Parts: sequence; structure tokens; C-alpha cells
Amino acid sequence: MKPEEFRRHGHAIVDWLADYQERIRDLPVQAGSSPGDVKALLPAMPPQEAEPFEAILADIDRVVLPHLSLWQHPSFFGYFPANALPAGILADFLSTGLGVLGLSWQSSPAVTEVEEVVVDWFRQMAGLSPGWFGVIQDTASTATLVALICARERATGNSFDRGGLQEQAPPLVVYTSASAHSSVEKAALLAGIGRAHVRMIAIDDAFAMQPEALESAIAADLAAGHVPCAVVAAVGGTATTSMDPVAAIAAIARRHGLWLHVDAAMAGSAMILPECRWMWDGIEGADSLVVNAHKWLGVPFDCSLYFVRDEAQLLRVMSTNPSFLQSAVDDRVRNLRDTSIPLGRRFRALKLWFVIREQGVAGLQARLRRDMALAQDLARQVAAAPHWRLVAPVVLQTLCVRFEPPEVPAGRLDDFTRDWAAAVNASGKAYLTPAVVAGAWMVRISIGAHTTEAADVAALWDLVQAVAAKRAMDYAA
Amino acid sequence: MKPEEFRRHGHAIVDWLADYQERIRDLPVQAGSSPGDVKALLPAMPPQEAEPFEAILADIDRVVLPHLSLWQHPSFFGYFPANALPAGILADFLSTGLGVLGLSWQSSPAVTEVEEVVVDWFRQMAGLSPGWFGVIQDTASTATLVALICARERATGNSFDRGGLQEQAPPLVVYTSASAHSSVEKAALLAGIGRAHVRMIAIDDAFAMQPEALESAIAADLAAGHVPCAVVAAVGGTATTSMDPVAAIAAIARRHGLWLHVDAAMAGSAMILPECRWMWDGIEGADSLVVNAHKWLGVPFDCSLYFVRDEAQLLRVMSTNPSFLQSAVDDRVRNLRDTSIPLGRRFRALKLWFVIREQGVAGLQARLRRDMALAQDLARQVAAAPHWRLVAPVVLQTLCVRFEPPEVPAGRLDDFTRDWAAAVNASGKAYLTPAVVAGAWMVRISIGAHTTEAADVAALWDLVQAVAAKRAMDYAA
Ligand SMILES: Cc1ncc(COP(=O)(O)O)c(C=O)c1O
Ligand SMILES: Cc1ncc(COP(=O)(O)O)c(C=O)c1O
Repeated sequence: MKPEEFRRHGHAIVDWLADYQERIRDLPVQAGSSPGDVKALLPAMPPQEAEPFEAILADIDRVVLPHLSLWQHPSFFGYFPANALPAGILADFLSTGLGVLGLSWQSSPAVTEVEEVVVDWFRQMAGLSPGWFGVIQDTASTATLVALICARERATGNSFDRGGLQEQAPPLVVYTSASAHSSVEKAALLAGIGRAHVRMIAIDDAFAMQPEALESAIAADLAAGHVPCAVVAAVGGTATTSMDPVAAIAAIARRHGLWLHVDAAMAGSAMILPECRWMWDGIEGADSLVVNAHKWLGVPFDCSLYFVRDEAQLLRVMSTNPSFLQSAVDDRVRNLRDTSIPLGRRFRALKLWFVIREQGVAGLQARLRRDMALAQDLARQVAAAPHWRLVAPVVLQTLCVRFEPPEVPAGRLDDFTRDWAAAVNASGKAYLTPAVVAGAWMVRISIGAHTTEAADVAALWDLVQAVAAKRAMDYAA
Repeated sequence: MKPEEFRRHGHAIVDWLADYQERIRDLPVQAGSSPGDVKALLPAMPPQEAEPFEAILADIDRVVLPHLSLWQHPSFFGYFPANALPAGILADFLSTGLGVLGLSWQSSPAVTEVEEVVVDWFRQMAGLSPGWFGVIQDTASTATLVALICARERATGNSFDRGGLQEQAPPLVVYTSASAHSSVEKAALLAGIGRAHVRMIAIDDAFAMQPEALESAIAADLAAGHVPCAVVAAVGGTATTSMDPVAAIAAIARRHGLWLHVDAAMAGSAMILPECRWMWDGIEGADSLVVNAHKWLGVPFDCSLYFVRDEAQLLRVMSTNPSFLQSAVDDRVRNLRDTSIPLGRRFRALKLWFVIREQGVAGLQARLRRDMALAQDLARQVAAAPHWRLVAPVVLQTLCVRFEPPEVPAGRLDDFTRDWAAAVNASGKAYLTPAVVAGAWMVRISIGAHTTEAADVAALWDLVQAVAAKRAMDYAA
């Protein structure tokens, strides 16, 4: 494709995307697809000869769009906000179009230095001290894996450089809670800590980790000759945005020499609001933390900000130094390859840089405050509605609701809950995610798509009430 | 940013990128930056208020472009080709602009199903049997880590589900060679295998692993009571594109129950050429393999194709199943979160799909053949030039050259080699990567940027000869 053709097709795609942004409100939020629908539209074998670009682009409308669930839709209340702000989309386009890799400083200096500066901007925005060293990882799952591997190495005196984890006889133990994201247990298992040595610490009524329970689990492990290694606290647990008490956990971690990793993947964005900083009070006592700029903040996926206190330990564990990557300036620069699992690196900082500048800190703050206010408004309405219940405190922008009308037998409430959520999703008018807390199904309403306005939340609440009431009739005894 | 503004700024960026493609040839290939140059151009603190998009975009010219090394430049011969074909750039723009995530099938069905189909297209293009199950990972480094973790779990009967790696007393051992990419040792260490249990098997004159040496290393480990776990073979080793003998290694792996992972990150693209398939003869005996579609093939970074024989083992080790990700169709679909470290997933398959279709298999084949022919042409000239030496066979598209003129004392040849390469790079007219093989520095000429034509290679050879001859004078005794 010649530059002139790139120009022509590029303009067509810009127009397609601008139109998509304009009409997204009128598209169904959830794809109505059945397994295999998309595959059936695609040839089983690759094309031998080139196809005209127009034909390829037409398949976005024919094959792709009808089978997407639209995370940028104003009525998307599922999972978590994964905002792709327009400025970030354009920045990422530039990043791909420039086509440079930042494996080492030398391989494209701006990739490294823009990242250093802009990640430090976020540090300041989140009220973190200058003692934190930050880098971009792809996702929180990866950042948490890196954290637990660094913790494992600290606990074993860097056994990676000798006989590995097996040379350590007493088992290392990792602590987290039932409110933690599944990526925490996954990271522990991938790091070689078995499931038998991952402790799910008891949670309180607000789904937060109980420090006393952590303390006694550690005591029990010490008594059994185990080696407490790391604790992962959630600031914004996945199901309910629960807040583990970081200060209390940090004190325990310090006392017993545990690595404290804070998973603020979701709630970390809110730390740009001074009134929310209590949520991670004690954070300066952590060893590492992760914030997903690709969630609520608005940087297009993937862009996870990973901060550590001990830069040297990160570099020691993650570095490689083959001859073909060495350069004369290595002692004076950061080489991004030494901070992450992948060697190659996209220019990810560009989208973070553009989003912060195009919005300004004030603009980002205003949007997050809007979303939290919308959540509080809706919470008041849910609390006041007959037979509706908030099953968790609304601290951020997520509501966990359950409808328990008298006509639905208690034993069928779980089925009913999943059922009405599925009916809402099937309508195409809104997208919600059901989840289990405290052994029962509830429905999460996660507010925060950047396109969502007050009217969208109001429409959702009308829809949810109507659909749930209608489904309830089928469950009447 | 409103859709209308997105449209306006988007068109400006398309034009900027098209212009960049048109003028890239006239820009310096290597950034002439010193450490700190970029940081000095950026404010140390984030902007409180929004900035006009025009001002942000202007910084691409002011702050970014002068400090990039241009991987898409026709005279980029460094590292490896990391082609971002225009069709792939546009597809990736669409992916970011659509703003959907494929953590589960349900979360956006097309993300999963297009990936399934298109990765299978590549399987066919590379001549692999239908017994392979393929997924997209971000990078080869990550894919190799996943492979070694799966190998570790197979060797320990899935200890992750019990007491972890520590419950296994005799150390697991991983085998690879000095020609392997640094990501192999790194993956082993991250997986908890210590450096003491990573064996660098001896290589032959063509830098390929010696099967007999592998066989005896395994025997020695067995005698010592160790547990041979995995062997990683390189098809296209990083420094010289050396080819480990996969068939012989596979036979040994089978005999001793080792997991065989094949790192074809670089050379895997060439497997779409039937005449190159001998390079991984025996591949069907491997347990896993990785091919970087984001290298020579032309899919913009990042897009690594990871294939395994035992899908169930991959899912067993990598899966998570929290309630909020469950759906009614889980038993009939692939959930991408169960195949990789990250939970969230960009729509990466889009760019692979677009590149294959816009080029056609025939178009991709023609470009790779062009690059290999250019490499052979240049190899003939280097071999014929006085005092120039090819230090490794030219099997693919990379030449490893050394200039040993009589006026440079033997003891200074290493310094001289790095020196003339640095001088070429500093000229801004071409970019080369020096590296060490067999204990001596040489210079790699990696041909394969998609913009590189015969005239560019000819110009490089003139430049290299002139610069090296000039530098040699400073070394004359
Ligand atoms: C608290 C928390 N941690 C981790 C994750 C995983 O994020 P990622 O997809 O970046 O790995 C999520 C969201 O999915 C989350 O909400
Ligand atoms: C043979 C080989 N393996 C692995 C890699 C690492 O690739 P990635 O950046 O995708 O991790 C490379 C290239 O850098 C390579 O040439």
C-alpha cells in the first residue's frame, strides 16, 4: 500500500470511526451472537491473492460490528469501564503508525523518556511520593505477576541466580482475599507458588480483608514452618470495589517482612481525586502497586502503570543484557526491556501523554466525579425502591444490586437474578455483569463509560426495574 | 473530544502519517539523541487544564520524531525487521477505535472468533498440521514464558494445583543454547528455574545446537538426580539466524519426556515459503512454538503467534474462572483469558487479518523472497571483498560481517568493529546492530524492512565499506 493509498483508506477509517462514535448510542450494547456465528462468515483458508482494501474494510460492517459488545456505549455498565478516549485512540494510531520499538533506550529514545516523564506525571496526580519508580506494563495481571516474582526473589535472596525456587525448602506463602481479582491467584500459581500456599484471608461485611485474620494466618504459617512471602491487597476489589485497609496490612507486612503489592487496577484512577485518597491510606508502606490507566481513566487498552519502591530489585529480576542490545549509554539510561516480561515495546506512553494533556488533570477529575455522583444518585434510588437491595457499599462507581420480590421463592433468587440480568443484556439496551458475593448472585452496575450521562443511568434504572419485574412473574409460585 | 473533532484531528493524523511514509527516506535512521534530551523538552508536572489538540500534535514534530530511531526506514538494518505494514496500521487503528475487550468470548464474540480463524490461516500458511492449537500472545518473550510454565507443570504433574514448584525436590532443568534469545533464559528464571539449572548446550560452526551435546547434558543431569524438563530450540537464532536441528532435538525430547518449545520468533515468518520449511523440519514433534507476526511478516507490534499441541494443558495452567466472567456458553467457546497471562485483550487479530488479506499469501511470499535474495546478493559481494568476512552462514535475511583489514591490529579488531558500526549509525544514513558471536564482535545486517529495495542495500554496502575503511586508518599502528 503506497502512502497515497494509506492516506485515502486512512481517511475512510477516520470517517468510519467518527460515524461509529456518533451512532454508537443506537447500536445494541451486547452482541446477540451465538458461538460460531463469526466463524461461519469467514473463509476457512487464507486468500492466496491480495484483496482490495475496500472489500476488507466492508467486512468490519458485515463480520465484526454485529458481533461486538460495545464497551464504549453509553449504556455499557458491564465488567469495568475500559474507556478509550478519542485523544488516546489518535495517539495510539500515531504509535502504531510511527512503527518504532523501545526495547532499549537506544532503539528509540523518545519511547523511553516520554514514558519516564508521563508515568511520573501520574505519580504526582495520584499523590504518591517521589520514592516510587514507575513503568508501563500491558495489564494488571502481568504487573501482579511481576510483583509476585520480585517478592519470591526477595524472599529467597534471589534464588533465580542460583538453584531457583526449588532450592528453598519451606514453602513460600502468598496472602490475599476472596475479594481479590482472579489475576492474583493466577499470578501466584504462575510464579510457582502452589494453590495450597495461597491464603484467601477472611473479609468483613464490606468485603475488605480483615487485618486480624491476616495476622493469624501468618502466625499459623510461621508455626508450621512456612515462609510468609507476599500479601496482595485490593484497592477496588473486582466484584464490589471493596477497599482493603492498606495501612493496617502494610504494618503487618512490615513486621513480618512480607512484600505488599496493592492491586488498584480499578480504583487507582480515583486517586487523582484528593477526596478519594483515603481509599489507599498507607500506600507509602507498599512495595509495589498497579493502576490500570486503561480502565476508568480513559487510556485505550493496554496501559497498566506499575510502581515499585525498589527499582534495583525490579531490574535485577527482570533484566537481560545480550550483546546485541548493549549500548554505550547503558549506565545513564533506563532500558525498558529490563522492567517487563516482553522484550519488544510499543510506544504506549504516547496515549497516556495525549489523554492527560487533552483532558487536563481538571478534566479527568471532573469526569470521575461525575461518575461517582451518578453512582450515589442511583444508589439512593435503589435503596428506596421496594425489594431492591444494595448488597455492598457504593464507594466508587459500582453498584451491586439484588431484587428480592416476595413472589420469587428464596431458593430461586440466584437463578432469578442471573435471569433478569441476561434479559437486560439480551435487550441490547444495556449491559450488566452478574457476579457472586458472599455466596449469592447479584448484579453489578458499573458506571463510568466516558459516554455515559445522567440520562443513560436513569434509562438503565427504568429498564432494569421493568425487566426484573416482568421476569419475576415467571418465578411466582 | 466530540466525534466532529475526532474526525478533524483524525484526518490531520492520517495526513501526518502518510507524509511520514513519503519522507521517511530523508530522515535520519538513528536518533542522534543524548540521554535526557527528550526529558528536557517536557514539563516535569502534568497540565492542570486541557491543552488544544493542535498543540499536542505539534509536539510529535518537536519532541518525538527527532528522538526516534526509525524501524520502518528503508535503511534500517538493525536488530530484526519489525514491519508495520500500512494495512496493519489501519487495522490496529480500527481495533483501538472500536474499543472492545476480548477477555471472554461473551465480552465481544468477534474478538475471539476472528482470532481463531486467522491464527488457523497462519497455521496453514506455515504448513503446520491441524493438530496445533494457536492463540495470539503479545510477544515471543511472553509466549516462551508460558511454554516453560506449562512445561514445568507437566513435569511436576501440575504442582500448581497443590504445593507448587517447591514440593518437587529434584531440580527441574531447562536446556537451550548460546544462540538462543535472551528471553529464553529470562523465561526459565521467571518460571522459578534457577540459573544453575539452565544449560547452554554447545553449538556447532553454524551456531546450531549440537544434539549429541544435548543428549550428554541430559544424561549428566539424570545421573545427578535432576529432572530434565524442557528444551528450547531456536529456528532463527537472534544473532545469526542459526537453525537448531529440530528433528534431532525432538527425538531426544521425546525419548526423555522433555517439553520441546521452538522459538521461531524471527524465522517463523519464512515458513510461509515452502522452500524454507526444511528450517524447522521435525516441527510436528514439538510441544509448542512461537512465531512473531510482528517481525518480518509485517503485522504491527505486538502480535506473537503461539501454538501448542496440548490445548487442555494450556487451559489448565492459564485458566481462571471468576463468577463475573462466567457465561452460559462457556462450554462451547474459547475464552481468551484462559490462554494468556493478561486478562484483558485488545482485538489483535484484526491487524493479522487485514495484513494477510491486503497482501495475499502470494504478496507476503514475494516480499520475503525479495529480502532473502537481497541478502544472498549482498553476501556474495561481502565474500568477494578483500578483508571482509561473513562470520555465519546467510540462511535467511541476516548477514553477520566483520572487516579485518591488515592495518588494524588483531587485538583491536573488536573495538574497531563496534566503532565503525557506531560511525555508520551516527551518520543517520543506516542503522546496524553489532553483536558478539563466538567471543568476537561482528556487525549484523538484518535486511527486511518492508520499504527496503535493492538500491538501499547497495547504498548500505557502499556506506559500510567507506566508513569502515576510513575508521581503519585511525587504528593503523
Ligand atoms: C481489581 C482488578 N485487578 C486486576 C484486573 C485485571 O486487569 P487486566 O486486564 O489489566 O489484567 C482487574 C480488571 O479486570 C481488576 O478490576
Ligand atoms: C529468536 C527470537 N526470540 C525472541 C525474540 C523476542 O521477541 P519479543 O520482543 O516478541 O519478545 C526475538 C526478537 O527480539 C528473537 O529474534
